[in-house]
Amino acid sequence: MYAYATGAFAPDHESRGISRAEAFILQNRFERPTLVLDTEAVARQYGALKAGLGRAVIHYAVKANPAPEILKTLCALGSRFDAASRAEIEMCLAAGAAPAHVSFGNTVKKPADIAFAYGAGVELFAVDAEEELDKLAEFAPGASVYVRLIVEATEADWPLTRKFGCAPGKAVSLMDYAVSLGLCPVGVSFHVGSQTRRAAMWAPILDQVAGVWADAKAAGHDLSVLNIGGGFPAFYGVEVQGATSYAAEVMGQIATRFGDVAHVMAEPGRGLVGECGAIAAEVLLVSRKSDNDLHRWVYLDIGKFSGLAETMDEAIRYQFLTERDHEDTGPCVLAGPSCDSVDVLYEKQPVQLPLGLKSGDRIVIRNCGAYTSTYATIGFNGFPPLDVIVI
Amino acid sequence: MYAYATGAFAPDHESRGISRAEAFILQNRFERPTLVLDTEAVARQYGALKAGLGRAVIHYAVKANPAPEILKTLCALGSRFDAASRAEIEMCLAAGAAPAHVSFGNTVKKPADIAFAYGAGVELFAVDAEEELDKLAEFAPGASVYVRLIVEATEADWPLTRKFGCAPGKAVSLMDYAVSLGLCPVGVSFHVGSQTRRAAMWAPILDQVAGVWADAKAAGHDLSVLNIGGGFPAFYGVEVQGATSYAAEVMGQIATRFGDVAHVMAEPGRGLVGECGAIAAEVLLVSRKSDNDLHRWVYLDIGKFSGLAETMDEAIRYQFLTERDHEDTGPCVLAGPSCDSVDVLYEKQPVQLPLGLKSGDRIVIRNCGAYTSTYATIGFNGFPPLDVIVI
Repeated sequence: MYAYATGAFAPDHESRGISRAEAFILQNRFERPTLVLDTEAVARQYGALKAGLGRAVIHYAVKANPAPEILKTLCALGSRFDAASRAEIEMCLAAGAAPAHVSFGNTVKKPADIAFAYGAGVELFAVDAEEELDKLAEFAPGASVYVRLIVEATEADWPLTRKFGCAPGKAVSLMDYAVSLGLCPVGVSFHVGSQTRRAAMWAPILDQVAGVWADAKAAGHDLSVLNIGGGFPAFYGVEVQGATSYAAEVMGQIATRFGDVAHVMAEPGRGLVGECGAIAAEVLLVSRKSDNDLHRWVYLDIGKFSGLAETMDEAIRYQFLTERDHEDTGPCVLAGPSCDSVDVLYEKQPVQLPLGLKSGDRIVIRNCGAYTSTYATIGFNGFPPLDVIVI
Repeated sequence: MYAYATGAFAPDHESRGISRAEAFILQNRFERPTLVLDTEAVARQYGALKAGLGRAVIHYAVKANPAPEILKTLCALGSRFDAASRAEIEMCLAAGAAPAHVSFGNTVKKPADIAFAYGAGVELFAVDAEEELDKLAEFAPGASVYVRLIVEATEADWPLTRKFGCAPGKAVSLMDYAVSLGLCPVGVSFHVGSQTRRAAMWAPILDQVAGVWADAKAAGHDLSVLNIGGGFPAFYGVEVQGATSYAAEVMGQIATRFGDVAHVMAEPGRGLVGECGAIAAEVLLVSRKSDNDLHRWVYLDIGKFSGLAETMDEAIRYQFLTERDHEDTGPCVLAGPSCDSVDVLYEKQPVQLPLGLKSGDRIVIRNCGAYTSTYATIGFNGFPPLDVIVI
């Protein structure tokens, strides 16, 4: 953490320091909403996670933020990559990653993209269904696959649906089918749920996975890859466990249940880059709907369609810095700039903001490094996508 | 409506014809998800709405679809435009619109964008708050403004929040304040809620607006502009009233309540272009999560982040055509291609699709002309934005 920047910006109520990205925002002016990314912070967080993960290999979840500078920084540190599409594979290769260090982690792949990946030298693919195995057998013959499992996870801040994975009882039959097609089933994967705040929350899920692992071994599958997915948290105002102790505690739980499994893969996205960026934004309007309204409405120049999609259902609650943080605060409904009524960021649980806030005030949205820039629309309401600056 | 295309595609269960955009999709192949827009259909729908709206002036809500060909088509027909931002104003001007025929309908405007619009010749601005009037007085001195009202509307398929508008009791004081700033308060606006399926649903809302209108007149404001907003529906599988009779019935209700108000503005977006486009998509995977699952999961190459954002909360329910529509159907959960668990289109209320559907099958998403292309993200998960072809 960095010393507070001088000037009117005061530290937030958590008394956390001002990050380098935030300091950069305070010292500059921006014509439109801009995400500032700090690759030094990325490198530091990679080190913190790696220190706890030990022998596990990090495959950065590129979808969290595919900025070329982030990919290059991580590549230079020895990170591997988890790609969701052909374009993400190409970005990893362009950043210098070896094809064998890129896994194709989407369980739903276009046949042409499978063929591309296989031709480029990608060796490891995620599956959760027979038809996906059929496609892999045709377009990536002999490839290694891991079976994604559905696990019951209810403690994450951004819990997962049943979209990805097969029921645990189906995993062994998928492995059998893979073998019958000449593919090589090497392991399993799962996801505890994005933004799982404490390592202790992993225990019941690891128990479920260990059961499938044992069943597969008993059925004769010589598994060597345990892909533990993501779920590593970023700070959004509610305390999260530190990265190193979190990762070490997860690895301890894995050792207890899986012994000396040959390869452990971890796929942090948010937990690696979430705290490595901040957004420079501006207040466009402060109003009350009627003279006796308790809540003000505060409208920013960025919203759900221009980078803050994760405010959907108010799941991720960003923190803010303003130049009036020394003033008294009051509750606000926070909304974006578009002419769309769903472009409201926080309403059910209003945000505390300074009472003097007004149009033209600058506002910093903290810890926005993950799932912002690429979530922006190409021009809904005529607003351009989020600008990105890497420092 | 057009004759059915020849080939394997059968008409859907509603026995509606195949549109020209759909026929174009059936006769061509697409490498990636593609929105096909039909400007002839746009012109036809403009005529149908205009026939019912009579003396009311149409200001097309550009945000619904800003494709230059649509703007040019409408401009040539005499349409005016409702713009949400500087970029949308520029698109209207580029399409040939006179600046005086473009209204700036966003109640949340950047000061620089107000100055741009005023300088370009835009004369009419939406407001719902004192601070917005302050900005207009400074950057668009003397401009005409209409006050956006919050109305209680519960019957629309995509109901509006309280994001836009002021409480009815505040409208007159805002007009008074506008006068004190040298601005010209000319009328009011409201929105019945997007996708209001029948004209009869407008009645209670028009009653509310008429009350404010009378109060403002009584307070000495010589109002001349009634902006009735949008809400005109498109067909998504549930019957909607025909455009001409719908518009005529709305105008009848207005005449009863407002008499011969000088200028009535209507801002159709979805109701003008929603049925004028279709998306060519492809099935990537069909699977069952376990062998005894009742529902299949069907994954498409397009999802919530690449054009189908309006499936949020399953609000807008698109219709589909496949090459197997002659087969028996069964319930499916429908999902997009991204590695994001929220990228599920329909789950609470599953979709009926052919039992034989499989990876590689083509699928047409019907009536996708509104709120698709610009809602697409710039590259989430590495997937490119929706392709657009205009026929």
